[in-house]
Amino acid sequence: MAKVIIVGGVAGGATTAAQLRRIDPEIDITIYEKGRDISYGNCGLPYHIGGEVAERDQLVAATPESFAERDVTVEIFHEVTAVDPDNRTVQVKDIRNDRTFDAAYDYLILSPGGSPRLIPALLDVPQAFVLHSLEHLDEIKAHIEEKNITRAVVVGAGYIGLEMAENLVHRGIEVTLVHRDTEIYRPLESDMSDFFMEELKSRGVDVKLDTEIVEVSGDTATLSNGEKIEAPMIIAGIGITPRTDFLEGSGIILNDEGYICTDKHGCTNKEGVYAVGDAIETNYHHVDRPVHVALAWGAHRMAYVISNQISGDSSVCFEGLLGTNIIRFFDYDIATLGLTEPELADYPHFVVDHRQKNKAGYMSDSVPIHVRAYVGKDDGKILRAVVVGTEGVDKRIDILSAHIRLGGTAMDLANIEVAYSPPYSSPKSVLNMVGYKAIEKMKKIHE
Amino acid sequence: MAKVIIVGGVAGGATTAAQLRRIDPEIDITIYEKGRDISYGNCGLPYHIGGEVAERDQLVAATPESFAERDVTVEIFHEVTAVDPDNRTVQVKDIRNDRTFDAAYDYLILSPGGSPRLIPALLDVPQAFVLHSLEHLDEIKAHIEEKNITRAVVVGAGYIGLEMAENLVHRGIEVTLVHRDTEIYRPLESDMSDFFMEELKSRGVDVKLDTEIVEVSGDTATLSNGEKIEAPMIIAGIGITPRTDFLEGSGIILNDEGYICTDKHGCTNKEGVYAVGDAIETNYHHVDRPVHVALAWGAHRMAYVISNQISGDSSVCFEGLLGTNIIRFFDYDIATLGLTEPELADYPHFVVDHRQKNKAGYMSDSVPIHVRAYVGKDDGKILRAVVVGTEGVDKRIDILSAHIRLGGTAMDLANIEVAYSPPYSSPKSVLNMVGYKAIEKMKKIHE
Repeated sequence: MAKVIIVGGVAGGATTAAQLRRIDPEIDITIYEKGRDISYGNCGLPYHIGGEVAERDQLVAATPESFAERDVTVEIFHEVTAVDPDNRTVQVKDIRNDRTFDAAYDYLILSPGGSPRLIPALLDVPQAFVLHSLEHLDEIKAHIEEKNITRAVVVGAGYIGLEMAENLVHRGIEVTLVHRDTEIYRPLESDMSDFFMEELKSRGVDVKLDTEIVEVSGDTATLSNGEKIEAPMIIAGIGITPRTDFLEGSGIILNDEGYICTDKHGCTNKEGVYAVGDAIETNYHHVDRPVHVALAWGAHRMAYVISNQISGDSSVCFEGLLGTNIIRFFDYDIATLGLTEPELADYPHFVVDHRQKNKAGYMSDSVPIHVRAYVGKDDGKILRAVVVGTEGVDKRIDILSAHIRLGGTAMDLANIEVAYSPPYSSPKSVLNMVGYKAIEKMKKIHE
Repeated sequence: MAKVIIVGGVAGGATTAAQLRRIDPEIDITIYEKGRDISYGNCGLPYHIGGEVAERDQLVAATPESFAERDVTVEIFHEVTAVDPDNRTVQVKDIRNDRTFDAAYDYLILSPGGSPRLIPALLDVPQAFVLHSLEHLDEIKAHIEEKNITRAVVVGAGYIGLEMAENLVHRGIEVTLVHRDTEIYRPLESDMSDFFMEELKSRGVDVKLDTEIVEVSGDTATLSNGEKIEAPMIIAGIGITPRTDFLEGSGIILNDEGYICTDKHGCTNKEGVYAVGDAIETNYHHVDRPVHVALAWGAHRMAYVISNQISGDSSVCFEGLLGTNIIRFFDYDIATLGLTEPELADYPHFVVDHRQKNKAGYMSDSVPIHVRAYVGKDDGKILRAVVVGTEGVDKRIDILSAHIRLGGTAMDLANIEVAYSPPYSSPKSVLNMVGYKAIEKMKKIHE
């Protein structure tokens, strides 16, 4: 009987195990997870702090026990420390018992995820946390309750930092946001980002830009600009690095940043070794360019692809990612897909901007929505799209995503038959209008 | 200079005039409108009664004066009573001056729309109204105010009747809904329609099914079941018939129900005669079958096609309709696209049903959403889709619409890269799951 080892039991690993078991009731599956928990909704962690996820246990999708019922072995506190693809073995460290052993596999699925970054000044600071796992969530909650925390510092204004800030505010905690950059949320175009500062101010968040924490002493943090701020709790949300050190010497190819390179079957360069989740590099769907996207949709899709591959159906492929993503920030929804702004420089393009109400303009509660599309000059391909507004943003980015995946151009957007009724759209929707504008611009370019 | 005559100045006609003027600054355009008003948002009329459209004049998109500024002639209270395509003339009745004249055209655009139906018992009843035009809206509002209306009867439980009932309730008027059928809202599958009665009850609407008004005397209406109900105001919403009597003898081909047959250029069978709006028959986009869809999206799209045709660009085609539609009924959103249930009988298919939360299930405010897809057995084509829920329905139907228009199958739904964050979706969205279920069903069928 074939033996499958899965490294990492959170999103990618647990989903692959579940999928594989569904397809193949016989295959031998073991998950090694270095942490305490498996299969929890880590995107939901901040929302439990804010109260939108009422019960912590709602975040737990599966446990070692529930996997055991499906005949999947889960070993927690077991860290895979080395991989030998030629002999098809992994080295495993049983952390609690401090012993190391080798385990053989026929198929190996790497789902190590990422490690949250921490700035040097926060190392060994007892009230400094990251929020990347259920363990972290429990630590933060315990700290808030034990110390009766009413003020906190959030480090970083990427999506994790912003979600943390929002949820702490929802919990009634006063927040200082410290951000090393001069701009909030870099993935969004700076000329579309004004609302972040307005929203932060209106929610009473004290924002310190262009500075960072250099020292923490007691409950006081000192910033690089000399300022001292109260910091009885600090949560850092400054991104992740792929947790792939253990692959050194394995011969498995990583990219320059340490992400595991995968092909359209989810396979690494080593036979029988697959990879899934936040630590992989894959390709864009719409252009031929590598990308790493630490988002759950891709992990779930790759889990399906890999489990089909291992079960013998190689027809199911991973067709690459658009990187479709969205964050909520208080009243705002911010969504993008496609290339990053710096990457766009390599592709001749024009820009279509359109603002329109999310529903019929005469409806009292209609609100503006702003769509920007970066359009390939030659073929009309949508290289990148951005949608910002306070309602209906998720709808527009998902339509764009579906449209682009099937080869729809910017001009084709004119032809999307939206469901029109005054509470939902205009007869010509905001995306139809982007399409009509793209048609006009394209005509001018090719006149 | 070419002369264009447009019959009917509401959605289709006014939009075509505006589009044509934008493309061609010179062409001579005259609109004949039999009513008092042109270019108003008639889908928004009920929402002004309910208060969601605060000001009546917000519903007016253009006036004869604003069109005059763009050098478009608008003649209101002018009814086109006959068309002679061989001589390229129309007969026009100037209603106010009770005179008739002929007008010559190079291009004729028919946008006559429909006439709201009225049951015989309501003819000549002073407190019986329909709501199909701004004039009707003004009459209804005046009646409500003058008679201090606190109770009303709505006839019909199609989308107009339901929107009327909802908006009257929002205005604080007690509603009795009289419906000849045994089921509310026929376009929705009867096994998915339970919530209508629950919602109507919870909003205090008195529902009389399987009966109709047979007589009105004073403020009392008698039903066919013998019941007498208070009826100081009656609004009928029982559909429209195409207003195409005036085409008798013109040689322009109508279908059996009186809709004007059009081709992919918006052209009728007579050269130079185009048609747009609620009175036309066109084709489905996804199957080869005629359909008439009295919805604004198609009218706007056809306006674009026709104005391009007349301006000499015949490359822009009308690719048919999916009939994508949505109605709001209090807290519910009900959306469908594609074939009607009776039409499905001609296409071998299987059904995929899936219910899932609209966002991450652990979010406190997540609510269920129900998607049903009727899938062609041979090719996996989505023949019809239905989405019902209280949030996020418009998003899913629009994604489906975009997906199907580009040839996406039910199985391909698995591959739509949705923007995932807990407030918006699950990592595998409800549509992804429909796709995965379709894949499984398809495998079993073709085993």
